[in-house]
Amino acid sequence: MSLTYRAAGVDISRAEDALARVRDRIKKTKRPEVIGEIGQFGGLFASPGADRVLVATTDGVGTKLELAGLLDRHEVVGTDLVNHCVNDALAMGAEPLFFLDYFATSEIDPGVFARVVGAMADACARSGAALLGGETAEMPGMYAPGTYDLAGFLVGAAGRDELLGPARVREGDVLVGLASTGLHTNGYSLARKILSRAAGSEGRSLSDLLAEQRRDLDDRTIGDALLAAHRSYLSEFRALREATGIHAIAHLTGGGWEGNLPRALPDDLGAEVDRATWGVPRVFTLLAELGRVAESETYDVWNMGVGIVFVLAHDDIEAALAAVPEAVELGRVVRHTGGRRVRFT
Amino acid sequence: MSLTYRAAGVDISRAEDALARVRDRIKKTKRPEVIGEIGQFGGLFASPGADRVLVATTDGVGTKLELAGLLDRHEVVGTDLVNHCVNDALAMGAEPLFFLDYFATSEIDPGVFARVVGAMADACARSGAALLGGETAEMPGMYAPGTYDLAGFLVGAAGRDELLGPARVREGDVLVGLASTGLHTNGYSLARKILSRAAGSEGRSLSDLLAEQRRDLDDRTIGDALLAAHRSYLSEFRALREATGIHAIAHLTGGGWEGNLPRALPDDLGAEVDRATWGVPRVFTLLAELGRVAESETYDVWNMGVGIVFVLAHDDIEAALAAVPEAVELGRVVRHTGGRRVRFT
Repeated sequence: MSLTYRAAGVDISRAEDALARVRDRIKKTKRPEVIGEIGQFGGLFASPGADRVLVATTDGVGTKLELAGLLDRHEVVGTDLVNHCVNDALAMGAEPLFFLDYFATSEIDPGVFARVVGAMADACARSGAALLGGETAEMPGMYAPGTYDLAGFLVGAAGRDELLGPARVREGDVLVGLASTGLHTNGYSLARKILSRAAGSEGRSLSDLLAEQRRDLDDRTIGDALLAAHRSYLSEFRALREATGIHAIAHLTGGGWEGNLPRALPDDLGAEVDRATWGVPRVFTLLAELGRVAESETYDVWNMGVGIVFVLAHDDIEAALAAVPEAVELGRVVRHTGGRRVRFT
Repeated sequence: MSLTYRAAGVDISRAEDALARVRDRIKKTKRPEVIGEIGQFGGLFASPGADRVLVATTDGVGTKLELAGLLDRHEVVGTDLVNHCVNDALAMGAEPLFFLDYFATSEIDPGVFARVVGAMADACARSGAALLGGETAEMPGMYAPGTYDLAGFLVGAAGRDELLGPARVREGDVLVGLASTGLHTNGYSLARKILSRAAGSEGRSLSDLLAEQRRDLDDRTIGDALLAAHRSYLSEFRALREATGIHAIAHLTGGGWEGNLPRALPDDLGAEVDRATWGVPRVFTLLAELGRVAESETYDVWNMGVGIVFVLAHDDIEAALAAVPEAVELGRVVRHTGGRRVRFT
């Protein structure tokens, strides 16, 4: 029997069909700097001026993908991927310019692809990022049937004097936090392990447990709580940049508090955070209880309800709270004298 | 029993150990435009200026990953990933600026990671691209133990008047090709299917067949022939740009000739290619014979020995051959009157 590429599991027309379904939504992300059409060997974007700095970020969404697949909520991970990248870029002080995605699967399901990439396009449009290109790979055998992985790449730009980071931070600076919508895109391997074990010990399936509506989750199901989209902080970043002189920003992702807040601080400084300043959402304490996870571990894995931390001059706190009323004063920047950089009080 | 992130299969210190092993090689890719150090939320690169156009590409290496794993040749796919992106960028007329990678696996093996990402760094250094950042994801359960996927993202730049593409191409232009080193990074699902079936019908394992040294492959093994690195055409691109006025470039990747050469041509033109102008390497004809793959199908899947095609003004052919002596005049650009855009003679 003679072999064809299609018989080997790869069908290029399937990828083209999938892309055709989202072409209009991708077009809506177009910005004046975009040159030419999709389908070239590279996406073209007029460079910002030499007084600007390009800020490049890359992210995935981790094993949240498995929950999204299990609960047929594919849009969420598309939104997540873009917002994760946008937040990483704004943490350096940058506005988004353009985004590219990598979508790898065993065999493209054009419907699922359109839901994921359509949601990416919509999130790009909301962030003002052009969806400039992407790679769609069929890798039969590498991925289990029906599963896929995603990677996102975003380039933003900031004025050279607008770059944020540790060099601007001083002892006594204030830490201001904004709420997360949940786990965002980090710590899902632990969450899934906890829930699988809990379901098993109750003799239920994971799906059954995820579908349980709970009063302590505001009548949402556990699945709903876990599949809240990774929030974009772009509008709040803009409001704070307008109202204050932001020194640095920490996006609380993989590695939780200790893994991320120090990245916004110079080596000789640490953070003192008052845990009484915000309420940890129930989804985190529920997971911690079900998995008997030590409290210190929870803050090293999950964001615990705070998705992003702005480091501001102490004098800016009132202006910050006026500009973004939901902002919470979490604590302050202190001298670091050894041990953990983030100290909770 | 209480759960930790590590018990759930994710160990952040493992990722840090892996990265530490390649830090020096990544540092060697640094360019003057790079600002700050690795480990920030985004990589920083001074913008090239408003007279330039940014060219962004993203690629994976497909199921060549499985062969690289099987034969313990992890360096190859790191090199492949960078060179694939570099070639896509130069196909638009761009020089590389910076590169980012996404590395996803079940559980990071720091040794394998260092071999893959180290090879990426070396390929970046050879291409003049700064390795500006990356994402390393442990996704237990998503990937089979020992397997990983890669995505690469490259930003290059070209002068606005240096952009290449269909708009520059005229009827009568000449097509000039450069040899590939083999399959590069496309058509591996078909190759693997062919070889698995051939091994099975001979009662041998795939590994055994791949390790077979063959006189008709210049005494290389089939595995060696399949794991030749995706060649970078950057130096030849520079030489041709210097010596001629390049109109357009087609990088022959997924979709083979018909899937890629038309992307370099305006809609009303096609390509006439004389197959007698180059010798198809034995690895392609061997695969075709073993799989009884129709000849037309082979050209729709594989590059068949030509990795890149330059479209030049007819008058430039002598200068091109003088600048890059290995270049081959393959054919010419003709009026397209329906059917396939690439016609072989």
